[in-house]
Amino acid sequence: MTPQDSTKNTPVGPRDSSKTPRYAGRATYALLPELHEVGHADIAVAGVPFDTGVSYRPGARFGPSHVREASRLLRPYNPAQDISPFEVQQVADAGDLVANPFNLDEAVQQVADGARDLLTRADRLVVIGGDHTIAYPLLRTMAEKHGPVAVLHADAHLDTWDTYFGAPVTHGTPFRRASEDGYIDLTASAHLGIRGPLYGKKDLDDDARLGFEITTTDFIEEHGVPAAVERLRARLGDRPVYISIDIDVLDPAHAPGTGTPEAGGMTSRELLRIIRALSDLNIVGADVVEVAPAYDHAQLTAVAASHVVYELISAMGRSKNIQLENTQLENTQRD
Amino acid sequence: MTPQDSTKNTPVGPRDSSKTPRYAGRATYALLPELHEVGHADIAVAGVPFDTGVSYRPGARFGPSHVREASRLLRPYNPAQDISPFEVQQVADAGDLVANPFNLDEAVQQVADGARDLLTRADRLVVIGGDHTIAYPLLRTMAEKHGPVAVLHADAHLDTWDTYFGAPVTHGTPFRRASEDGYIDLTASAHLGIRGPLYGKKDLDDDARLGFEITTTDFIEEHGVPAAVERLRARLGDRPVYISIDIDVLDPAHAPGTGTPEAGGMTSRELLRIIRALSDLNIVGADVVEVAPAYDHAQLTAVAASHVVYELISAMGRSKNIQLENTQLENTQRD
Amino acid sequence: MTPQDSTKNTPVGPRDSSKTPRYAGRATYALLPELHEVGHADIAVAGVPFDTGVSYRPGARFGPSHVREASRLLRPYNPAQDISPFEVQQVADAGDLVANPFNLDEAVQQVADGARDLLTRADRLVVIGGDHTIAYPLLRTMAEKHGPVAVLHADAHLDTWDTYFGAPVTHGTPFRRASEDGYIDLTASAHLGIRGPLYGKKDLDDDARLGFEITTTDFIEEHGVPAAVERLRARLGDRPVYISIDIDVLDPAHAPGTGTPEAGGMTSRELLRIIRALSDLNIVGADVVEVAPAYDHAQLTAVAASHVVYELISAMGRSKNIQLENTQLENTQRD
Amino acid sequence: MTPQDSTKNTPVGPRDSSKTPRYAGRATYALLPELHEVGHADIAVAGVPFDTGVSYRPGARFGPSHVREASRLLRPYNPAQDISPFEVQQVADAGDLVANPFNLDEAVQQVADGARDLLTRADRLVVIGGDHTIAYPLLRTMAEKHGPVAVLHADAHLDTWDTYFGAPVTHGTPFRRASEDGYIDLTASAHLGIRGPLYGKKDLDDDARLGFEITTTDFIEEHGVPAAVERLRARLGDRPVYISIDIDVLDPAHAPGTGTPEAGGMTSRELLRIIRALSDLNIVGADVVEVAPAYDHAQLTAVAASHVVYELISAMGRSKNIQLENTQLENTQRD
Amino acid sequence: MTPQDSTKNTPVGPRDSSKTPRYAGRATYALLPELHEVGHADIAVAGVPFDTGVSYRPGARFGPSHVREASRLLRPYNPAQDISPFEVQQVADAGDLVANPFNLDEAVQQVADGARDLLTRADRLVVIGGDHTIAYPLLRTMAEKHGPVAVLHADAHLDTWDTYFGAPVTHGTPFRRASEDGYIDLTASAHLGIRGPLYGKKDLDDDARLGFEITTTDFIEEHGVPAAVERLRARLGDRPVYISIDIDVLDPAHAPGTGTPEAGGMTSRELLRIIRALSDLNIVGADVVEVAPAYDHAQLTAVAASHVVYELISAMGRSKNIQLENTQLENTQRD
Amino acid sequence: MTPQDSTKNTPVGPRDSSKTPRYAGRATYALLPELHEVGHADIAVAGVPFDTGVSYRPGARFGPSHVREASRLLRPYNPAQDISPFEVQQVADAGDLVANPFNLDEAVQQVADGARDLLTRADRLVVIGGDHTIAYPLLRTMAEKHGPVAVLHADAHLDTWDTYFGAPVTHGTPFRRASEDGYIDLTASAHLGIRGPLYGKKDLDDDARLGFEITTTDFIEEHGVPAAVERLRARLGDRPVYISIDIDVLDPAHAPGTGTPEAGGMTSRELLRIIRALSDLNIVGADVVEVAPAYDHAQLTAVAASHVVYELISAMGRSKNIQLENTQLENTQRD
Repeated sequence: MTPQDSTKNTPVGPRDSSKTPRYAGRATYALLPELHEVGHADIAVAGVPFDTGVSYRPGARFGPSHVREASRLLRPYNPAQDISPFEVQQVADAGDLVANPFNLDEAVQQVADGARDLLTRADRLVVIGGDHTIAYPLLRTMAEKHGPVAVLHADAHLDTWDTYFGAPVTHGTPFRRASEDGYIDLTASAHLGIRGPLYGKKDLDDDARLGFEITTTDFIEEHGVPAAVERLRARLGDRPVYISIDIDVLDPAHAPGTGTPEAGGMTSRELLRIIRALSDLNIVGADVVEVAPAYDHAQLTAVAASHVVYELISAMGRSKNIQLENTQLENTQRD
Repeated sequence: MTPQDSTKNTPVGPRDSSKTPRYAGRATYALLPELHEVGHADIAVAGVPFDTGVSYRPGARFGPSHVREASRLLRPYNPAQDISPFEVQQVADAGDLVANPFNLDEAVQQVADGARDLLTRADRLVVIGGDHTIAYPLLRTMAEKHGPVAVLHADAHLDTWDTYFGAPVTHGTPFRRASEDGYIDLTASAHLGIRGPLYGKKDLDDDARLGFEITTTDFIEEHGVPAAVERLRARLGDRPVYISIDIDVLDPAHAPGTGTPEAGGMTSRELLRIIRALSDLNIVGADVVEVAPAYDHAQLTAVAASHVVYELISAMGRSKNIQLENTQLENTQRD
Repeated sequence: MTPQDSTKNTPVGPRDSSKTPRYAGRATYALLPELHEVGHADIAVAGVPFDTGVSYRPGARFGPSHVREASRLLRPYNPAQDISPFEVQQVADAGDLVANPFNLDEAVQQVADGARDLLTRADRLVVIGGDHTIAYPLLRTMAEKHGPVAVLHADAHLDTWDTYFGAPVTHGTPFRRASEDGYIDLTASAHLGIRGPLYGKKDLDDDARLGFEITTTDFIEEHGVPAAVERLRARLGDRPVYISIDIDVLDPAHAPGTGTPEAGGMTSRELLRIIRALSDLNIVGADVVEVAPAYDHAQLTAVAASHVVYELISAMGRSKNIQLENTQLENTQRD
Repeated sequence: MTPQDSTKNTPVGPRDSSKTPRYAGRATYALLPELHEVGHADIAVAGVPFDTGVSYRPGARFGPSHVREASRLLRPYNPAQDISPFEVQQVADAGDLVANPFNLDEAVQQVADGARDLLTRADRLVVIGGDHTIAYPLLRTMAEKHGPVAVLHADAHLDTWDTYFGAPVTHGTPFRRASEDGYIDLTASAHLGIRGPLYGKKDLDDDARLGFEITTTDFIEEHGVPAAVERLRARLGDRPVYISIDIDVLDPAHAPGTGTPEAGGMTSRELLRIIRALSDLNIVGADVVEVAPAYDHAQLTAVAASHVVYELISAMGRSKNIQLENTQLENTQRD
Repeated sequence: MTPQDSTKNTPVGPRDSSKTPRYAGRATYALLPELHEVGHADIAVAGVPFDTGVSYRPGARFGPSHVREASRLLRPYNPAQDISPFEVQQVADAGDLVANPFNLDEAVQQVADGARDLLTRADRLVVIGGDHTIAYPLLRTMAEKHGPVAVLHADAHLDTWDTYFGAPVTHGTPFRRASEDGYIDLTASAHLGIRGPLYGKKDLDDDARLGFEITTTDFIEEHGVPAAVERLRARLGDRPVYISIDIDVLDPAHAPGTGTPEAGGMTSRELLRIIRALSDLNIVGADVVEVAPAYDHAQLTAVAASHVVYELISAMGRSKNIQLENTQLENTQRD
Repeated sequence: MTPQDSTKNTPVGPRDSSKTPRYAGRATYALLPELHEVGHADIAVAGVPFDTGVSYRPGARFGPSHVREASRLLRPYNPAQDISPFEVQQVADAGDLVANPFNLDEAVQQVADGARDLLTRADRLVVIGGDHTIAYPLLRTMAEKHGPVAVLHADAHLDTWDTYFGAPVTHGTPFRRASEDGYIDLTASAHLGIRGPLYGKKDLDDDARLGFEITTTDFIEEHGVPAAVERLRARLGDRPVYISIDIDVLDPAHAPGTGTPEAGGMTSRELLRIIRALSDLNIVGADVVEVAPAYDHAQLTAVAASHVVYELISAMGRSKNIQLENTQLENTQRD
């Protein structure tokens, strides 16, 4: 099924909550069908329950099921982007990718293989982690498909460190490895929400060399969200963009359920607004990672994460519409 | 006792916390006397422990006692409104209204009857829920007394849906039923803090038809609190206003203890500021609902709710003063 | 498919946890296949997310998904009963039955209809609640199939009260209604684990009249588990038995996540041992109810509940084996 | 009103939970009337919200309201003792005694004064703490009324230490001070449930000298509850007995919400059974202390504490009946 | 060692987290060496585990160890102030000062003595509380060394009340006592973040008389952080400043783990930004108090507090650098 | 220092809690000195913060600091064993051993090296985990010193599985690897507390082959603690014994804070009693593992674990005394 086709068939939407209460039945993301039930999807939502790459609090292996449980609350129309994201495109839950908890290298390979395989059944992926390690294999599959991608990385931390205890691939290093391996467009990537102490000033130099521009939380506090959006947009341009969101970009008040909390973060309102403001980017894939349920309370973090995923999917739906309109325009013009 | 009288007698205030520690003794709202102890009150604070109308997480039946416990911390002078709300008017705790948990229709009737009865002993009511279902019978009593009232409805959700599983009155429908029954002034009502996904675009059309103007959380994020206040003031005008506050209008970070959390909400600081800015409205009644203690942490949500009730009572005290001053002015002029 | 048939086909077992970590993938009960994937099952495990019948703390509507999450930990061989319960019989997860949260009568009808329908695709049901109201419609379907059944009811409370606030069917009344309607064998039913205060001495008389013999928690404390087992066995005899377990039969230390906790309860060790000791009964159906996740901690209650379900399924497997052996013996003898 | 009189008037019982749900309305103990509403009571239940005497985790100042909230669940008939404790005697909630949190000496005086005053309006007191410091002033009032009393002290700790940081009266010393001051019958007092490390072997010698016999938790584990009961009965004899129960006598699994938890404690089932077995003692007063709500979960500890209070009141009701019967018998014989 | 000397020796920094994971080993503040290991420090971080001065929720006695545990996450370079605060100055953990929990007066004396003693081994102190009572003895030592100091007091509450229950020194009175005793520069002190109800309007008059100017949370909401900074700077001038931060200055969403929460507070982002903006002040000492771990969740409050301490230390490092540069300049000029 | 020597010097005991409150100061185990402060110890208590070997809930890396915090409550005299364990022998806290979280093989090597090194400064080790993986390297060092040791393994699980996802050394396999490597005396090892489902019947055969005899929790439920002790004693004999205690041997009610909870476990009272009953064994080392703080509540699990460690140290102290007495006896006889 090509994107064009999916506009012909009506996508299968979420379970009808006027017939089955939202708290009933299995917890696929947003109560959407499983991928095998629809065959092919415009967007597959997949979990990667894996946290062997964490350097502090583990537990993100339970993130995917936790976020799915909280996503029961989502409804099908998104007024903030004026879109019904599950109507304009087929979105489906692809379940979880397997990743060996005892072997980081094998896990990275498994995630890359799993994502590559999923991309034969879905045009785009939105992945729920799991720890940030998984961005590395996910970026590999992105680069395989699109060439080096622009990365919008929302996080309290740079995640461009070199090694931890001799391990080259952990949740503190995915963007360094991905940059070194050529998966990232060095001229068009950006961090959002950086804050808190670093190991040294050199961290910032290394980071810049690897292709990132930084918009700190302090920048947002001082200059506001629109200025941040403008800055990000200028950096990311119109390249294929991969968006990687560590939930710890939010303040611990908004996301206590995570592994390496830093005070002074963003509100969920700011983050959602920024994603919406970037909905015309060409988002080719995304992940939302580092939700550690054992530290969450009343699904606070998971509600935020599930909404972030929802906005990402909505944004993808909008950009798809734009592309379709452009395509139709082109087709019309060609006719 | 008429309002004029109550300025002659000194109202009975909260228990003296210089003699009894605030954590000691029974937890009436703000440690105020019970209504039967003062006979008649300018404002009665009543609980409605009821949550059979919820569509997701239940538990708001424990809301009234939870908010009362947190209200032990309140002190008698409100510098933000420069008023001693328990001195300028008699405020008393009227205990809880009974509502049958096994029968929605009977419960609605009981709450209407209970509120009507309370209004023979108190001039105004501030009700602590309970789920939002109770706004429907409360608005009925308001309309009986004042005619159709302007409604300021602070909530993440519209609550103007039609039916859930065939039930016409639930926590998602009170303002639709109230509007249909003529309790609401269709030209002067407003939602505040709306956000998050809807069932469909039609929800917005239905809502507008029922008499509501929407000020979203995004509006506040973009334009700021003063702009929101101005917008609300313009809509509500100088009519009798009923204020209904679903605590989920706050961000889950500020109010985790609620049933249908939506990311990206208001801060308690914003909400308190808005209520203060509207203190010259003619507030004829109010409710604060949907506090579900089982999901709360360290009374976070209850502290917010008890402060919201406190600002509402303070605002009522100010508007009463204004009315009294106007009356005195008139009397003076007549002399 | 008859029971005999199912011994010819190899049942489909739980997901292979040597390939997919147990915390990954969808949380069916014990990671078993869904019923639609196997067509027909010896035992269907179904959830009934419903709690409108509760008189105190609600929240059991989230019980089924919570127990399923905790059941990820279960492994396929049960040494305590020396059986592989998912090998000797096809067990499958039938998902959740729908029950209208706003209408007790309709909900009861829906559960009865849903269970009846499930019994066309499964020989026996084990239901995860939900509040205890659901035992009433479940017993109806049992009686339809087997005639009046012996009931083993493990609970802190009698649940044979008459009405609450005028409602005849709530979580405090299922066994009274079921008894009145002839679903229960009045000569062969038993309560286990009763303790705590009652409304009056008459409660005990009413209860006895409705067909129940009581084994209190105090009896177990004084006389030990074997004496309790003997007493239960003598009462239940060799009739078809329905086992209904309110998780509050356990002490709050073992099951904090429930709605009406009573101090002084059973340990999970005692309860599991009793079920094992009764594994030669002819168990025709079972439920485990009243798990209220919002009051649980670290899945404590859900782990207990999921193990109880596991022992029930194991016991069913053993009795099935016994029946098969008897059948084979008879066949042999006939030859 | 004398005890004899109260058998003539019908005592005012708990709020009718068939009319008002138990979760509604103010949380007096067991939903009983307040003392001022009945004038005089056979038993007054009073809180002492005080915790300045604690040496480790504070927070018991919130104990009284927490236990009252959990006591909403209690029903009026106690089958374990076959008594309706609120029918055979007037039990009422006397609210909280004031105790200065900043001055231990003044607090002790206030509690003694408050208790003495209460005893003019009630025949017996059951006090909910608060930390164990309060047993000292309570024993003073007992001794004033009854002379030196036998003490049954259930606790993980001896509480007969001398001083902490120079303070003679803290939660670790009440029974030493009370013994030194002659409030305790040195020949008839007992600790129950002692366990865990001590400061030194001398602690045991000091303790014996002060009049206590020890029944450890280990004794119960080895010899069973009946042997412990026999031992306690032999020690306490038929003297007036004051029962002081530190909730940490229970295992932390049964009472996490306390200040100085010790592993290996009693179950709530054992404790309730022991109290019931001692119901023919002449219990002249009691306290249940050291419930620290901030460390509780799902009211686990408070449910246990409220049941313990309920059994104490039931036992008092039974002994009162016995005394009345004896009195009547004597009167009959005299005739 | 004089400050000048410490620039010659390389300060001993935090434990190397590339060799030992940050979650391993003892939890000194920021994994820094203990004071006795370095002999003398520019800044000593000390705990005062004490909470007998609290009027509501106790528990801050566990604050120091809780904040230290959360401080494991801090890294050595602070990009927000462009400083490596543990490189430019020797910072060390001085452990906890002893304070008698049973005697407020003795405790105050002990803290004063302990702090005075510490100042023989360290140039500046940053103290982790403990409740706010401790600011009184700490200000005494500051005044002994520097004369009356300007105080920047961040708090929801004024803490200039007179007495509680007759106690002159509690956590509600330290700044009144300190002002009366001449420890505070009456012309240069400021409250930041004040909000919530007071006992009466007179509170504000008393407070002004004692030397404080108030910047409320509402001021920040209305005018923004830069305006607040300017106002504070104008008030504090270039005097020696003592900064005392009650963590309840943050909104309960950001700091649930505290004793007297008030809705509508500051975000941790705002507070951190204000401290950074004041880094050129001459900060001679500081405390961060009122972290009550029993009410915290996922170390939310402790993470905020540990970051606040980190910014304070960074600011001290910057001002020290400024002074050193000035000194060097002077030396150069003298040459 | 030989054991004989240490009886000449007085061991350095815990910090004096009559001078410093137990909640103050650094949290070494039982507030004992650090090993470097005493030079050499009879027993070193060390942490191994490591959890990369877990197959389900991670988090035990925070176990050591959590158990140490809870151990603040321990006092120096153990009446249950009539011993002052810190007086008869020098016990000291050796801090944490480093273990690479990203490399299981390296971690195992590090733990073995670290333990071997510690044994040059301490005669015996008691290790606080961390996950059960660490028992493998610890047994290696035991075998190096003592030859194959008898193992008493208290656990819900066998931990003699072969591999998980290809990893030979995880928390499910330490006793298989240790057995294969000859560290375990195949004729004298025992599991205690086994319960819950297995992967298959073959698990039991494999386990027996590896040298273990099983005493299940059911055995204890049926036959009581003394029978279990007798059985263990018969199996373990008088060989050097290593005791490895997975805290999940306790019921989840007693130890919620662990990674793979199984219903129906032991009480802490039973476990403590068994350890005491085995105090005359020749215990050469021990570990207490799998405390996962993120799932704990109110330090429930950590209190139990810290008491278990305390009983182990006490038992070691008693056996040391016995050996000394025997030695003295021999010496006497030789004279």
